[in-house]
Amino acid sequence: MAARTKGIEGNMLIAQSGGPTAVINQSLVGAVLEAMKHKSIRNIYGALHGIKGILGENLIDLKRESRATLQAVAGTPSSALGSVRRKPTPADCAAIFKVLAKYDVRYFFYIGGNDSAETTHIINEEAKKAKYQLRCFHICKTIDNDLRQNDHTPGFGSAARFVAQAFMGDNLDNAALGGVKINVVMGRHAGFLTAAAALARQDEEDGPHLVYLPERPFSLEKFVADVKAVHDRIGRCVVAVSEGIADEKGTPVVTLAATAKEVDSHGNVQLSGTGALGDILAQAIKAGTGITRVRADTFGYLQRSFAGCVSAVDAKEAFGVGAAAVKEAVSGNKDGSIAIKRRKGPKYAVEFVRVPLRSVAKETRHMPDSFINKAGNHVTQAFLDYAAPIVGKLPKIGKFKRIPVAKK
Amino acid sequence: MAARTKGIEGNMLIAQSGGPTAVINQSLVGAVLEAMKHKSIRNIYGALHGIKGILGENLIDLKRESRATLQAVAGTPSSALGSVRRKPTPADCAAIFKVLAKYDVRYFFYIGGNDSAETTHIINEEAKKAKYQLRCFHICKTIDNDLRQNDHTPGFGSAARFVAQAFMGDNLDNAALGGVKINVVMGRHAGFLTAAAALARQDEEDGPHLVYLPERPFSLEKFVADVKAVHDRIGRCVVAVSEGIADEKGTPVVTLAATAKEVDSHGNVQLSGTGALGDILAQAIKAGTGITRVRADTFGYLQRSFAGCVSAVDAKEAFGVGAAAVKEAVSGNKDGSIAIKRRKGPKYAVEFVRVPLRSVAKETRHMPDSFINKAGNHVTQAFLDYAAPIVGKLPKIGKFKRIPVAKK
Repeated sequence: MAARTKGIEGNMLIAQSGGPTAVINQSLVGAVLEAMKHKSIRNIYGALHGIKGILGENLIDLKRESRATLQAVAGTPSSALGSVRRKPTPADCAAIFKVLAKYDVRYFFYIGGNDSAETTHIINEEAKKAKYQLRCFHICKTIDNDLRQNDHTPGFGSAARFVAQAFMGDNLDNAALGGVKINVVMGRHAGFLTAAAALARQDEEDGPHLVYLPERPFSLEKFVADVKAVHDRIGRCVVAVSEGIADEKGTPVVTLAATAKEVDSHGNVQLSGTGALGDILAQAIKAGTGITRVRADTFGYLQRSFAGCVSAVDAKEAFGVGAAAVKEAVSGNKDGSIAIKRRKGPKYAVEFVRVPLRSVAKETRHMPDSFINKAGNHVTQAFLDYAAPIVGKLPKIGKFKRIPVAKK
Repeated sequence: MAARTKGIEGNMLIAQSGGPTAVINQSLVGAVLEAMKHKSIRNIYGALHGIKGILGENLIDLKRESRATLQAVAGTPSSALGSVRRKPTPADCAAIFKVLAKYDVRYFFYIGGNDSAETTHIINEEAKKAKYQLRCFHICKTIDNDLRQNDHTPGFGSAARFVAQAFMGDNLDNAALGGVKINVVMGRHAGFLTAAAALARQDEEDGPHLVYLPERPFSLEKFVADVKAVHDRIGRCVVAVSEGIADEKGTPVVTLAATAKEVDSHGNVQLSGTGALGDILAQAIKAGTGITRVRADTFGYLQRSFAGCVSAVDAKEAFGVGAAAVKEAVSGNKDGSIAIKRRKGPKYAVEFVRVPLRSVAKETRHMPDSFINKAGNHVTQAFLDYAAPIVGKLPKIGKFKRIPVAKK
């Protein structure tokens, strides 16, 4: 049964951008399945590798994918249409608009982070300038959880779940063998994902015992002293560190390494896909404390794409955001970004709200002060209360009471 | 109902050793629950941190743990009794035997790898020398899958499952953004775990496209050429590399890094808990091919302890091996190690067989030649057939048919 649609008929184009997430295809399929309900949307095109696919006119016909395939893709991590890291120039945006017009696209959806919201905004402005009715929507996603207007973003819950499960196991590994374990978590400017490590804790003795976020200046001396204090007290220490930690001057700690720096088209130094930061921190602990067993792991890309570690809430919301964008687009000559707002009240519930593209673009948000402890080396209960429902119920951990046998 | 037991009555002591696994507590709880059925086993002691706990007489009373706790612990990763990396001297083994005798221990179980089998053997010899009836059993575990006599070892299936799921997602991540992705997998001398990455492949285009195992000498030149060939063909490349790869002379590739080496009490260079090898390989690709997007992740400790990624077959078998050890021990004055043998026939089935302690101790086993391709850069179908039932059914991956839209 096709719902009635106000106004323009034409084709739809959808694309994915930026770092993949475990649920980015839920948003894609949510939008496609919703679009199939509306007669005003004729063809449903998917552009391969984001704006690169639009510029190169590499489009696929999503209406010719079976429902079974769509459902299987929804449950599959990483961008099924391919992704792109390219930030379009104003000339690119003008060219993109021309392709959209050529293919009679009237419904445009771009799944991505704040850069994608900005891209969507510029394309929207091009359409307005040309007096071409184009309903432009940004569909939010990012494991960094750093989009303005959003209580949280699709992709964060599943990545946070991976981080929490990793720390649950790694804390027990560290408890079994002792020493210091440092885990480097993704998050260039926002510490939400690193903070999610704290969800792993079931009692006071559990790690992570220390959590370092990019929202607070990082001091190597303070770090070594913090670790030593925990190790002196309990004989071990598990640390969560954001890849983006920087010193007082804003210099990323990873640049202390002598390795060649790689800078992407956004001017960002490469942080992921290298073990450099973990190794720097481990060396600092060894040199500064004399503790011999010090290990560092960098979670890397597993955090965002691991197959089989998904928050059910995150998956459902990601689908819902995609579907909501299409519902809004067919309901009138609108544009915007679909944001997740949390309802007030004791029970967790969200709603999807259309907000201006500009209000999500460019700047990002950070961990609020209320989520970070005073010492700047852990999270607060307020953060745990915020993140727990998004991540969902974690695996159960069993521990012995350890009733000692009297020594003979 | 207590089963009848032949011979000696006394206490039982059980301990865990070496690197934790996701199912090492299944073996512990399997042994404890079986022991509770037998009247000849009076107290059930757990030693904290392996032989260190025995030497220090740090024992806990496992009969005072509730059944609910035992069941929860069974499903929890990493050694619940704590572990140890210490290789005992002959003097240590003599001291251990004295503690066992002092606590009237007649049933001794040590869960671990080949070093633990050797320790169990030496303690057994001490008991024989003293004409003290001690039923000594080794309960096999290792994610490396390198114990002789075993078709496979408890812990491998779950670690292999983690590796396979990681590669399933990471292959899609690489497909979305392109470039070269190198993942460093645990396995100092045996390549089984690295080889498990190949289970992630669902079609010819899927990664890992290249798999490097410690069983074959590693050449940096050949590696760069292999990666370039794949990248030239499909525009991307996913590589699985064992942490233990070494050159023709046997020099570990990781030692090419300028970082300080750490050597453990077994004389092993530290391979895990550092991103050095991945960074060396990524630099080699960048320098040798001109490909700009090259990333390396080191899976690290997540492989063996991640909470919530367990092979059901592995969990069941780990429990069964622990229970089988106790069954054997109460059935007569025996000693040995419980090995997993695969039954012949089209359907996957195993049995638990008692083998001599010495036959598992010391030397380890490697990937047979039939599991490695001729070029030495991938696995064969024989390996996939071998590993698939141990790892279990993997998450379903959905992919679009990608029917192109005609260009205008």
